[in-house]
Amino acid sequence: MSALAQRFQAVRARSEALCAPLEIEDYCIQAMENASPPKWHLAHVTWFFEAFVLAPFAPGYRVFQKEFAHLFNSYYETAGTFFPRPQRGLLSRPTVKEIYRYRQHVDGALLDLLANPPQQHAADILQRVRLGIEHEIQHQELLLMDTLSNFSANPLLPAYHTPDLPAASSQPPLDWQTFSGGLIEIGHEGAEFAYDNERPRHKVWLNDFRLATRLTSNAEYLAFIEDDGYHRADLWLSDGWHTVQTQHWQAPLYWFKQGSDRMHFDLTGAHPLREDEPVSHLSYYEADAYARWAGKRLPTEAEWEHAAHAQALSGNFLDSGLYVPQPAPQPGLCQLYGELWQWTQSAYLPYPGFRPLPGTLGEYNGKFMCDQMVLRGGCCVTARDHLRASYRNFFRAADRWMFSGLRLAKDI
Amino acid sequence: MSALAQRFQAVRARSEALCAPLEIEDYCIQAMENASPPKWHLAHVTWFFEAFVLAPFAPGYRVFQKEFAHLFNSYYETAGTFFPRPQRGLLSRPTVKEIYRYRQHVDGALLDLLANPPQQHAADILQRVRLGIEHEIQHQELLLMDTLSNFSANPLLPAYHTPDLPAASSQPPLDWQTFSGGLIEIGHEGAEFAYDNERPRHKVWLNDFRLATRLTSNAEYLAFIEDDGYHRADLWLSDGWHTVQTQHWQAPLYWFKQGSDRMHFDLTGAHPLREDEPVSHLSYYEADAYARWAGKRLPTEAEWEHAAHAQALSGNFLDSGLYVPQPAPQPGLCQLYGELWQWTQSAYLPYPGFRPLPGTLGEYNGKFMCDQMVLRGGCCVTARDHLRASYRNFFRAADRWMFSGLRLAKDI
Amino acid sequence: MSALAQRFQAVRARSEALCAPLEIEDYCIQAMENASPPKWHLAHVTWFFEAFVLAPFAPGYRVFQKEFAHLFNSYYETAGTFFPRPQRGLLSRPTVKEIYRYRQHVDGALLDLLANPPQQHAADILQRVRLGIEHEIQHQELLLMDTLSNFSANPLLPAYHTPDLPAASSQPPLDWQTFSGGLIEIGHEGAEFAYDNERPRHKVWLNDFRLATRLTSNAEYLAFIEDDGYHRADLWLSDGWHTVQTQHWQAPLYWFKQGSDRMHFDLTGAHPLREDEPVSHLSYYEADAYARWAGKRLPTEAEWEHAAHAQALSGNFLDSGLYVPQPAPQPGLCQLYGELWQWTQSAYLPYPGFRPLPGTLGEYNGKFMCDQMVLRGGCCVTARDHLRASYRNFFRAADRWMFSGLRLAKDI
Amino acid sequence: MSALAQRFQAVRARSEALCAPLEIEDYCIQAMENASPPKWHLAHVTWFFEAFVLAPFAPGYRVFQKEFAHLFNSYYETAGTFFPRPQRGLLSRPTVKEIYRYRQHVDGALLDLLANPPQQHAADILQRVRLGIEHEIQHQELLLMDTLSNFSANPLLPAYHTPDLPAASSQPPLDWQTFSGGLIEIGHEGAEFAYDNERPRHKVWLNDFRLATRLTSNAEYLAFIEDDGYHRADLWLSDGWHTVQTQHWQAPLYWFKQGSDRMHFDLTGAHPLREDEPVSHLSYYEADAYARWAGKRLPTEAEWEHAAHAQALSGNFLDSGLYVPQPAPQPGLCQLYGELWQWTQSAYLPYPGFRPLPGTLGEYNGKFMCDQMVLRGGCCVTARDHLRASYRNFFRAADRWMFSGLRLAKDI
Repeated sequence: MSALAQRFQAVRARSEALCAPLEIEDYCIQAMENASPPKWHLAHVTWFFEAFVLAPFAPGYRVFQKEFAHLFNSYYETAGTFFPRPQRGLLSRPTVKEIYRYRQHVDGALLDLLANPPQQHAADILQRVRLGIEHEIQHQELLLMDTLSNFSANPLLPAYHTPDLPAASSQPPLDWQTFSGGLIEIGHEGAEFAYDNERPRHKVWLNDFRLATRLTSNAEYLAFIEDDGYHRADLWLSDGWHTVQTQHWQAPLYWFKQGSDRMHFDLTGAHPLREDEPVSHLSYYEADAYARWAGKRLPTEAEWEHAAHAQALSGNFLDSGLYVPQPAPQPGLCQLYGELWQWTQSAYLPYPGFRPLPGTLGEYNGKFMCDQMVLRGGCCVTARDHLRASYRNFFRAADRWMFSGLRLAKDI
Repeated sequence: MSALAQRFQAVRARSEALCAPLEIEDYCIQAMENASPPKWHLAHVTWFFEAFVLAPFAPGYRVFQKEFAHLFNSYYETAGTFFPRPQRGLLSRPTVKEIYRYRQHVDGALLDLLANPPQQHAADILQRVRLGIEHEIQHQELLLMDTLSNFSANPLLPAYHTPDLPAASSQPPLDWQTFSGGLIEIGHEGAEFAYDNERPRHKVWLNDFRLATRLTSNAEYLAFIEDDGYHRADLWLSDGWHTVQTQHWQAPLYWFKQGSDRMHFDLTGAHPLREDEPVSHLSYYEADAYARWAGKRLPTEAEWEHAAHAQALSGNFLDSGLYVPQPAPQPGLCQLYGELWQWTQSAYLPYPGFRPLPGTLGEYNGKFMCDQMVLRGGCCVTARDHLRASYRNFFRAADRWMFSGLRLAKDI
Repeated sequence: MSALAQRFQAVRARSEALCAPLEIEDYCIQAMENASPPKWHLAHVTWFFEAFVLAPFAPGYRVFQKEFAHLFNSYYETAGTFFPRPQRGLLSRPTVKEIYRYRQHVDGALLDLLANPPQQHAADILQRVRLGIEHEIQHQELLLMDTLSNFSANPLLPAYHTPDLPAASSQPPLDWQTFSGGLIEIGHEGAEFAYDNERPRHKVWLNDFRLATRLTSNAEYLAFIEDDGYHRADLWLSDGWHTVQTQHWQAPLYWFKQGSDRMHFDLTGAHPLREDEPVSHLSYYEADAYARWAGKRLPTEAEWEHAAHAQALSGNFLDSGLYVPQPAPQPGLCQLYGELWQWTQSAYLPYPGFRPLPGTLGEYNGKFMCDQMVLRGGCCVTARDHLRASYRNFFRAADRWMFSGLRLAKDI
Repeated sequence: MSALAQRFQAVRARSEALCAPLEIEDYCIQAMENASPPKWHLAHVTWFFEAFVLAPFAPGYRVFQKEFAHLFNSYYETAGTFFPRPQRGLLSRPTVKEIYRYRQHVDGALLDLLANPPQQHAADILQRVRLGIEHEIQHQELLLMDTLSNFSANPLLPAYHTPDLPAASSQPPLDWQTFSGGLIEIGHEGAEFAYDNERPRHKVWLNDFRLATRLTSNAEYLAFIEDDGYHRADLWLSDGWHTVQTQHWQAPLYWFKQGSDRMHFDLTGAHPLREDEPVSHLSYYEADAYARWAGKRLPTEAEWEHAAHAQALSGNFLDSGLYVPQPAPQPGLCQLYGELWQWTQSAYLPYPGFRPLPGTLGEYNGKFMCDQMVLRGGCCVTARDHLRASYRNFFRAADRWMFSGLRLAKDI
C-alpha cells in the first residue's frame, strides 16, 4: 500500500478514535453557531473525499446517499446548496451508525481508487487526496474544539477524557529573544504540500524585534484581570471594548468562579486554574489588550514566521493525547509550535501574487480573506505533521473557542 | 394495587412506548424554541413527581441527582432556577439511558409511596399524583408535536411511524347546527379532576348561534389559498398580516410543494395532501382569516363548551394509535373531540372567581393568562381520558406546531 | 356655519395650539417605534380628511401633494402603501411649514364641502367628518404622549410646559364601593357617534363586585416597589416577569432616581415624585402584579362600564390644560373619567355581533382585536367630549407610554 | 491675526456655509446608525475645541453648558460618558439656534486664546488647534455624506443643491501605468501636520505593479451587474456574499430603477445614471468582487501611496463646490486625489513602530485598527488642503455611505 494510502487510513482511523469517548448523544449537539456537531464533522470530511475525488475521478462510483451533498457540504457555493450552518445540530438523521457506514463506503472506494488510479487523473487524485487528508486533520481539531464548547454549555460540565497530566514543575520566567530584521522572505515554496494561502514566498522588510521566549501564562494574565483589565477602556480596541461590554466578558472563555476560587474548564473537566499553563481561549481583543497593558505588542505574522523558521517543529500536539496546553519546558525560546495558536497583529490577507486553487477548491481559503486575524504555530489539538512554519490559521477577532493564546513582542 | 397506581403505571409506560420508534439521536434535538427534546420531556415529567410528591412527602426519599432540579424544572420560578428553554437541545448529558434510569428510580419510589402513604399527607399525595399523571399526558402530546417539528426541520423528512390509515371515504358536506343561547353555565364543577383554570363554573349569556357540523377540511382551506387568501390584507388581523409578511407564510405549517403538487408532512412522513382531512397546524391568525374570508367567525369558548356538553366524548384520540386527524365519519355534528384542537375567538383569561392552586403549582396555569387564545376539544395525539367538555387549551395566536384546526361558527 | 363645521374648526385649531410650545426640532423626532413625530400627527390627521372625505366626495378637489398619501397613511392596507412606521422620524421633508400649508389647504376645502355638500353623499360626508374629528382628537392625545416619550429620551429633560398645578391637598384614603351584578348590558346603542368597536349593546352576566373608590396612588405603588415587587416572580404573569427581567424594569416609566430621591418626569419636566398623584405610565403587567400583591384584581371592562354608566362624565381632561393627573378630589367613587386610563383584565375582542365599518375604515379598530388589553375612562390628555361610558381604549400588555393607571377591584 | 487663526475662522465658517441649504428639520435627523445629524456634527466639533483646548488651557474659560460634554462627546471613553450614537437623532434640544450660539461662544474664546496663548502651553495649544481644524474638516465631509444618507431615506428625494455641472465630454478609455517596486518607503515624515496613524515612515517591499489610469466608471460597473455580478457567489468574499444575500444588494448604494431606467441619487437629487462618472458608494465587497470579475485586483495602500507620491495633489475636491465626482479629465494617470476614496486591499493596521497620540487624543485613530480596510486619495467632499499622499482613511468592508470608488491594479 502506498504511503499516501497508509496516511489516509491512519488519519481516517484517528477521527474515529477521537470519538471513542463520546456517547451517541454527544455526536449530535451544536452549542454555538460557529461550531458543528461531531457527527457532522465525520460526515463532512467524508463528503469532501466523495465530492472532490470519488465523484469526478472514480469510475463507476456510486454516491452513498444523494441528499448528503446538501447536508454535508459546508460552504462551497459552487458545489451546490448547503444546509444552514446554525441548524446542523437539528439533524438527528442520518444516525451516527449510518454516518459510520458512509465512512466505510467512502474509505473502501477511495483505497480502491488509490490502488488503481486512472492514468489521466492520477496527479489530480493525489493532490486532492492529500488536501482531503489535511482537511480531515483540521476537522479533528475542530471536533475537539467544538466538543469542548458543547460540553461547556452543560451545567454538568462533562469531561471528554481524564489523562494523567505531567506533574507541575515551576516554569522559567518570561524572557526576550532578539531577532534581526532586514529584507527577509516568508511563505511556502517548493513541491511539498502547503495551502494556497501560504504562497507565494515573497519578500518582506522587517525591523529588528524581540519575542517573548514563551507564551503568556494564566498567572500573568490573571494580573491583568486583577489590575482591572476588563474595566479600562483605554486598553482595548474599540470593537473589543464594545464586545467586553455587550458580552459581559470578565475573563477568558472557560474560566469561571466557584465561590472565590478561579476555576477552568477544559477537555479534562473542571479544575482549579493552573497558574503556569499558558492562558488559552483568548480573543484577539483580549490578546491585544493584554499586550497593551503590558507595554508590549503582538508579533506580526512575518516576525513570527521569521523566528519560527529556525526552530525545530516540536511541542505538545494532538499526538501527545493530552489535549491540554503545557507550561514551558525550559528557558529560552520555546512553545513556538503546539500548545496554543498564537495571535498575530496581522490581518488575514492574500500574499502578493496569491492565486487560489482552481475551481471549487479555490473557495477553501481565499474567500475568507477579510476581517480575520492570523494565528500561528498550532496547538495541543493539532497534529504535528499538519504544521509548517508558513502555516496560517485565521479567526475573527472576537472568536475564543479555538485553542488560542498569546506571545508578546516588542520593538527595539 | 390501587386504581391510581395502575393509571400511574399505564401512563408512565405509554410515555416510553411513544418513544419506541425514536433513535437515540431523535431524543436529543430541539428544532424550535417552543419545543423540547423528547428526552427532556421524559425527564421533566419525572422531576415533576420527584419535586412535588416524593421530595415533600416520601419519607427518606433520595433525590436521584441534585442537578436535575435545575435541568428539568420547566418554568416554576418559585421552585428554583431552571436551564434556559431555548438551550434544552444542547444537553447531551444526562444520556437517554440515564434518563430511563431516573424514571425507574422515581417510579419505584412513587409506587412505594402510593402503597403506603403517610396518613397526614395522603390527600395531598393523591391530588398531586393525579395532577402529575395529567401533566405527563400533556407532555406525551407535546412529545409528539415536538417530534413532528424536529423531523420537519430535516430535509430527509423522516417518518415517526407508518400506520395503516383507514381507507378514504367521501366526507359529508359541511352543514350547520343551531344552538339556543340564554343564560348558560360553563366551567368545571364537582370533585372530579379538572385544572384550576376550568373553575369555577359560572354564568355566561349567549345569543343563539350556529356551529359547523364538522371541522374545515384541507380542500376547503385550499380554496382560501387559491383565492389569494395569503395576499389580501383585508382578511387578516393586523398582527396576523405582519406575521404572514415577515414569516412568508403561504400555507399551513407542514404543507409544501413538490413541483406543482401540494404535499403534507406529518408523523407518517410526507405524502400528497389529503383533501378530506381536517386542515391542521393553523395559527389563530389563519383560522381567523379563513373564517373572515368565508363570511363566518370562530366560536367563543362558551359557545363551544355549551355545544360540546351534550355530546359524547368520542373521536380519534391518542388511543387510536394513528396520530393523524381523520375526516368526519358521518353527517351531523361531530369531531368535537379528538382530531384537532379548535381555535376559539376567546382570549385565555381567568374565569370570574378563579383561584390558582396554592403554592408553586399555582404557576401551572394562571401565569399564562395573557396574550393567548383558547382552543377546545383535544386532538389525535391527546389521550381520551385526559379530556372534558370544560378543558381549556391555550396557545399564542402565531403558534402552529400543535395539532390545531378550525370549526366555523356564525350568528343567527 | 354648522355645528359640525364649528367643531371641526375648533378641533383643528386645538391640534395647532397644542404644538405652540414646540420648537421646529421637536416636531421631527420619534424616540420609540410606537410613537410618531408631532409633525407626522399633524399631517396624518389631515390626510385622513383628504383621503376619506375630500378625494371621494369633494367635486374637483386637488390633492395637495400626491406623495403624501404614502407618507401619511398610517396603517390602512386597503388605501395604498405606507411609509414604514419606525422610520417616521427620518423625514425632514415636508417641513413643518409645508405641513401647516397642507392643513390650511385641506381645512379650506373641507369647510367648503361642509357648506355645500353634494346631496347624494351628504350622509357619508357627515359621518366621515365626524369620524375624522374624533380621529384627530385621538391624535392630540398621541401627540402629547409621544412628545413626553421624545423628551424623556433627552438627558436635558425638557419641559413641554410649566402650568400652575393645584396646590396639593391630602387625598382621601382608598375605600370600596359595592355594585350589584346580574344580567346587565354594556356597549353603545343609538344614533350618537361611537366607534364600531363599542357596538352592539349586548347582555353580560356579572357577579356582584367592589371597585376601589379612586385610582391607586404613587405612594401606594411605592409600597409595592419597596416590598420587592419587581423582584418576586410569583406576583407576575409569565410574560410580565420576562419583560421585567429583559427590560430591567424597576419602577413605572418616567420614574428615576436622583441620588436616593424618587423623581418623576412628565410634561411639566422633572420633579420629586408626588405621593398623592395617581400612579401613571404602568404596563398591564405592572397593574396586574400590583393588584395580585394587594390581594385584589383589576376590574373587567363590563364591571367598569356598569359602574361608570351611573357617573357624571367629569374629571381632569385635556380641557383643563394641565396634562398631569390629579389626586382624588373627595371621598367616594371618583376618577372614573379623566386623570388616567384604567387597565381592565379584559382582552380587546369583538363584542357579540360586532360589525366593522364597511370598506377601508373597517381597518380603524377591528384588525387590532388580538393580544391587546382594554383600558377605560380617558385621561388628562383626552378631550372630555371625546369620551363615553362605552369607550374602549386598547394597548399591548407591555405598553407604558400612554397615560395609564389602575383601579383595584375585588370579588364579594 | 495668525495664519492658524485665519485658517480656524475659515474652516469654522465653511461648516456653517455647508449648512446653508439645510432646513432646520434637516439638521436633526439620522437615517442610519453610522451617520449623525448635521447639528450634532456642528456641536461635536465645537466640543472638541472646548474639551481639548479651552477647558485645559484657556484661563478662566466658562464651559457653555456642562451637559454638552455628554451629548457631544463622540467616542472618547477616557473623556467621560457619551450619549449613545444610534440615538443622536432623538435629540431635539439643544436647538439649532442654541448650537450656533455654542459655536460663537467657543469661537470667541478660541480666537482670544490664540491671540494670547499662555506661554507654557503654547505648543500644545497650537498642536491641538491644528488637530481640531483637521477634525472639523473631516466632519464637514461626514456632514455631507450623512445628509445624502438622510435625504436618500425620504421618498421625496430632496436635493441638497443644484449646481451647474460641467458638460459631459467623453472620457478616455481605461489604460494602465506601470510602476517599479523595490524597497520603498511610505508614511509621513517631518514636522508638518499628519495624523498619528500615518507615522512612522517605514520601509516596504513592493513587486512591480500596474495601476489603472483612472477610476472605474458607472458604465464599466454596469457591465459587471449585467453579467450577473450580484448573483455569482464565486466572485465574492464570503462575508460579501452573505451581505449581498441578506441585504438584497443589486447595485451600488443610491442606484435605483424607475421603470427600466437606471437612476442615481446624489447631493444634486435624482437623475439618470451618468455613464462616465466614476462608480461611487461601493462597499469593499463590491470593489473586490468587481476586480475579481475583471481579472484584476485592488491596489495595496503601499502601492497607491508609492504611485501617488509623484503626482500633483489635484482633482475635484470640496473646494469646487460640486460635491459630485467627475469623469477623468484626460488620458494618463489621473483621479488619484479627489473624486472618490479608493478602496485598497490593505487592512487598517498600525505601521511598524506606530505610537498613538498621548492621552485621550490617542483614541482618535488607534483604537479602530481592527476589521477595517484602508481607502486612499480623498473625494469630492474632502477639502484639498486636508489631504496628503500618506493620508489613510478607513471604513468597514460593508460600508457604502461614504464617497468610495475603485481603481484597479494588477501584477506584472
